[in-house]
Amino acid sequence: MTSRGLIGVFDSGVGGLTVLKALRRALPHHDFLYLGDTARVPYGRKPPEMVRGFAHEITAFLVDRGAAAIMVACNTATAVALTDLQNAFDIPVWGVINPGVEAAARATRSGRVGVIGTRGAIASGAYQRRLEACGMTVWAQACPMFVHLVEEGLADSPEAEILARHYLGAHPDIDTLILGCTHYPVLAPVIGRVLGPGVTLVESASVAAESLRITLAADAPGHGRITHFVTGDPVAYEHTAHVIGGVDGEIVALPISELKAYSPLGVSASR
Amino acid sequence: MTSRGLIGVFDSGVGGLTVLKALRRALPHHDFLYLGDTARVPYGRKPPEMVRGFAHEITAFLVDRGAAAIMVACNTATAVALTDLQNAFDIPVWGVINPGVEAAARATRSGRVGVIGTRGAIASGAYQRRLEACGMTVWAQACPMFVHLVEEGLADSPEAEILARHYLGAHPDIDTLILGCTHYPVLAPVIGRVLGPGVTLVESASVAAESLRITLAADAPGHGRITHFVTGDPVAYEHTAHVIGGVDGEIVALPISELKAYSPLGVSASR
Repeated sequence: MTSRGLIGVFDSGVGGLTVLKALRRALPHHDFLYLGDTARVPYGRKPPEMVRGFAHEITAFLVDRGAAAIMVACNTATAVALTDLQNAFDIPVWGVINPGVEAAARATRSGRVGVIGTRGAIASGAYQRRLEACGMTVWAQACPMFVHLVEEGLADSPEAEILARHYLGAHPDIDTLILGCTHYPVLAPVIGRVLGPGVTLVESASVAAESLRITLAADAPGHGRITHFVTGDPVAYEHTAHVIGGVDGEIVALPISELKAYSPLGVSASR
Repeated sequence: MTSRGLIGVFDSGVGGLTVLKALRRALPHHDFLYLGDTARVPYGRKPPEMVRGFAHEITAFLVDRGAAAIMVACNTATAVALTDLQNAFDIPVWGVINPGVEAAARATRSGRVGVIGTRGAIASGAYQRRLEACGMTVWAQACPMFVHLVEEGLADSPEAEILARHYLGAHPDIDTLILGCTHYPVLAPVIGRVLGPGVTLVESASVAAESLRITLAADAPGHGRITHFVTGDPVAYEHTAHVIGGVDGEIVALPISELKAYSPLGVSASR
């Protein structure tokens, strides 16, 4: 049975914790279930149908645990699976791409906008299509090593500098850049240095949180509790999460085999 | 009960498959259990006592499944846990550091040797101490992003070039470099380009395989079978393993919770 004060949030790993933080600020009395799929991180290079299967299992699991609304706090999963999830589940399912587009539309004056993300998110064209539909001129760049910089705790390092210069140094004339991956806000200082003060960095979290607040604020509130489910090792999760500000709440190990039971294809889909 | 034709091999992820390949070439009729701890990869930045706990659990699990000898196919785990494992288990346990040192000693003419690895492996000083004990002059460099380049399938990419130049471009006068991480042989082409023809690249796998062959060749042979246990998702494992030449054999999902039962501290150590 779903509980109206309970929101499910998921990501491939710890990146979605940046979104969870914004959601908690907007809805401090709601309860949250966060699922970090650390046994299968990163999603950015995996085939779209594989990521779609992961997103479906996770959403079914969170709904089974009582979530009355779902936030897909992962750009790759949003890009390839959001519409599917919205069709398959009869509760509200949000993603992080539309809020990112909205944030960019509010920030840009020139209408020339950049977006960076994983290879999967950029290859899907999900951001580009929506931005162009809003009349913007778009520059898109995949930055596959950025997630690893963050998870290695190297957001402020020579490696971050040289990779940021590599990916972003030759950007065209833009005035706004969407950080199209929930890990990337951690890299905002180095990205800002490379792009200079003429480019405004925007991300989805605050706009998404505002949208959930407007829709869900009238729900019966919960107790402000957070439970983290992790498919990988809880100790390793807690260790990695330090790079994003740490974990607040209980951490529960969720074996992949248990999650597979929620696959639309059944457990046999694990191979 | 242990089976004398059965060898257990483990790594944090897919990197150890480079070692498994060399072992199979040396002992084609032995059976192998390979454990890829993909739910907790990478080991290179985790605290030594955490990695030591992982190595102990995994070894106990492999011994319980019948392994009569263990190959720690991970430099980080070898650096921080090999001696512990050799004391705790009464079967032969090999690591990849001594074979790497031996390979370097055979290759160098000048006695000036470099070693690269994860932060954990380099910080442990395990290679440096052994090389210096052999009278060599040592240059050591941690390359934390190299594992991620390999697992992202970016071994042959502009990112690999710029990171290799960053880590290795200012190397002192050496004639031999130890690839002190089982993932790094995949990066040998780009490392070789940066260092030039005057530096010989060596790795542990072939020397380690020779050592096991000499010790174990007289065992009752097995059937040349391989079983892969993975703590993360089997589908994701198979996908990532393509960067190292793919997986040969059955893949079995091994939940972390099941592995924790082999912890010397018991299941409660999972938090």
